[in-house]
Amino acid sequence: MTESLFIAGDWGTTHLRLYLCRYVLDQPLNVLATQAGPGVSQVNGDFEQIFFDLVGDWLDKHGTMPVILSGMVGSNIGWQAAPYIDCPASAEQIVSGRTAFRARGIEFSIISGLRTINPLGAPDLMRGEELQLLGWMGAALDVKTETARLIVLPGTHNKWALVQRGKIETFVTALTGELYSLLQNHSMLIANTETADFSDHIFMQGVKVATTLESGQLLQALFTTRSRQVLGELSESHASSYLSGLLIGSDVVGSLALMEKQMGAIESVDLIGDSALSRCYQLALESVGVKAEVRDAVQIAMSGYEAVYLALYSLSGGSLPNSSAPKSSSPNSKGEIPL
Amino acid sequence: MTESLFIAGDWGTTHLRLYLCRYVLDQPLNVLATQAGPGVSQVNGDFEQIFFDLVGDWLDKHGTMPVILSGMVGSNIGWQAAPYIDCPASAEQIVSGRTAFRARGIEFSIISGLRTINPLGAPDLMRGEELQLLGWMGAALDVKTETARLIVLPGTHNKWALVQRGKIETFVTALTGELYSLLQNHSMLIANTETADFSDHIFMQGVKVATTLESGQLLQALFTTRSRQVLGELSESHASSYLSGLLIGSDVVGSLALMEKQMGAIESVDLIGDSALSRCYQLALESVGVKAEVRDAVQIAMSGYEAVYLALYSLSGGSLPNSSAPKSSSPNSKGEIPL
Repeated sequence: MTESLFIAGDWGTTHLRLYLCRYVLDQPLNVLATQAGPGVSQVNGDFEQIFFDLVGDWLDKHGTMPVILSGMVGSNIGWQAAPYIDCPASAEQIVSGRTAFRARGIEFSIISGLRTINPLGAPDLMRGEELQLLGWMGAALDVKTETARLIVLPGTHNKWALVQRGKIETFVTALTGELYSLLQNHSMLIANTETADFSDHIFMQGVKVATTLESGQLLQALFTTRSRQVLGELSESHASSYLSGLLIGSDVVGSLALMEKQMGAIESVDLIGDSALSRCYQLALESVGVKAEVRDAVQIAMSGYEAVYLALYSLSGGSLPNSSAPKSSSPNSKGEIPL
Repeated sequence: MTESLFIAGDWGTTHLRLYLCRYVLDQPLNVLATQAGPGVSQVNGDFEQIFFDLVGDWLDKHGTMPVILSGMVGSNIGWQAAPYIDCPASAEQIVSGRTAFRARGIEFSIISGLRTINPLGAPDLMRGEELQLLGWMGAALDVKTETARLIVLPGTHNKWALVQRGKIETFVTALTGELYSLLQNHSMLIANTETADFSDHIFMQGVKVATTLESGQLLQALFTTRSRQVLGELSESHASSYLSGLLIGSDVVGSLALMEKQMGAIESVDLIGDSALSRCYQLALESVGVKAEVRDAVQIAMSGYEAVYLALYSLSGGSLPNSSAPKSSSPNSKGEIPL
C-alpha cells in the first residue's frame, strides 16, 4: 500500500489550523479537509478535548492516523513542551527533537523549536517557522550544496534564516510585525486605522528614510509619521503605509547587514509568508538591490509536514504503515530518524 | 507696587496643573496654591467651565489676574489653537506668537508651539516643552553667547533641543517614551509589569547593546528582550530595565549623532524632566562620554511662566499692572514684546 493518511496542524498563539492529508508515493500531498480552532492563548488547558472535537468526524470515517503539530502548541503554554534544538540543525535533528505522546490511541508529534546565538551575539528563538524551513529544504534543490541561502519569513516576529549544506545555520528575529501592530493600533502616530489606504509610493518613502538612517535613528524617524501628518505632508490615510515602510525598511537594512557577516554578499533571498506582507518585503529588498522570490507559504508548510511525516513513518522506501494501524515501533524522540 | 499675581497652567494631553503665582521684583517666583484637573484628551469642549471651576476660589479671594497656559491646550484639540512658530526662534518670538483671548473678564495667553526641519531633514514639532526651554533660557547665564547647548527633555516624545545665541535653533523628537510604554504594556516582550524591579545593571546592559548596534538593528535587539527571558538569561522582573536601556541607549546614540552634525562635538547636555527618567538618560549619556546635568523640571517650568509673564506684563522695569486691573494695552500677538 503506497497511500496513507495523517493529520497536520499549525497550532499557533492565535489560531489552530488542521489539515487532513493524504500521502501517495510520488504524488503531491493532497489535503482532503481542513478545520480551524482556537489559538494556544485562548485554550484553558483542554487541548485534547478541543483537538478531538475538531477531528472526530475524520477519525470516525478513516480510523486512527498519526498527528503532526507545529507552533506554540509545543511551548510552555502549549499542550506538551517540545524542546528548542540548537543551530546549526539539520532536518533530521529537528525531527528527532520532537515531543511524541499518545492520546486516545493516536500518536502525536509536536515539532521542536530552534535556538541559536544570532549574528548580534544574542540568544534567539524560533517556534513554528522551522516547519516552513523544513518544507523549503525539502522543496529546494540546492540545500545540500555549499551555497548559503537566506530565507525571510515575514510575520509578527519576522525571521531571517540562513540555510547551508542542508542545515539551518542560524537566524535572527526582528520585532517588525508586532511593533507595526502596536503602533498602528495604540500610538499617536496613526489616528484612524479604518481610513488606511495602502500606497506603494508612500511605503517606499518610508523604506527610503529607514534605509538611509544611521544607527539609533529609528525612534526619531518614527515620530516623523506624526509630524508629517500635522504639517500636511502626509495624509491620515497614508500614515500606515509610511510607518510600514519605516519598519520594514529598517528590518531589511539591519538584518541584511547582520546576515552578510555570516554569508557574504547577498544577491537574492526567498520569502515565505502572507502574500501582502511578502510583497512589502520584496519591494523593500529590491530597493536595496536584493532580488526576492515570493514562495507559496501554504504549499511550503505542507511540504514541511510531508517531510516530517515521511521521516517518521516511511521507515523504508515505500513501506508505509497502514493509517489505521500506526507502527508501535515508530521512533521516539531519542531514536534515529531516517530522512 | 512691585508685587502681582498671575495663574500659570500646564494643560497637556493627560493632565492639567494650575499654579497661583506671586511675582515680587527681584525675588524667586512664589507658588501660593495649585490645582489639578483633566487633560485635553478628557475634556469635551468645555475648557472654560473646567478652568473657572478650578480657580473660582483664587479669583474670589484675589480678584482678576492674567492666565498663561502652555501645552496641548493650544493644539487643534485644545481650547484655542496657538500656531507653531518656526525655528530658529527667540524667546521674544515665541511669546509674540501666543494666542491671546478674554473669557469672563480674564486675559488668557496660550503659548505657541515650535516647528523645525530637524537634522534628519524631516519636519518636527514641539508643544509644551518650549515653555521649559523659555525657563532654561531665562535661567541660564550663557544663552546670549555663541556657545551652543543641547537640552534634553525626556518624556513620551523625547526632545533634543539645540539652543544658541538666545535662540532655539532646531530640535529632534524621538518616540522613546511612547514606544517604551506600548512595549511594556502590550507586547510579548514584557510578561508582567507588576513584578518589574528596576536594575541599573540590567538597564546598562540594554544601553550597551543599543549603543553598539549598526543601523537598522533596533528591531532585532528588541526581540532579545523576549529570547533572553525564555532562555533564562534575563529575569521577568528585569525585562523592563533591559527594554528601557535598549530604547534610551538607541535614542542617545542616534540623537547625539544627529545633533553633532549641527553643533560639533558634544561634551555635556542639560536634562529637564521627570527625575527618574532623567537619571536613566544621565546614565546612558555618561556611558558614551557625555556629561549630563539634571535640572529641576518644576523650577525650570516656573521660570518659563515667569519669563512669559514679565514679557507680557512688565512693560517697563518695575511698573507692573495691578493684579486686579489688567492693562488694556497689553500687547497682542502682533505687538512687540519687551523681554
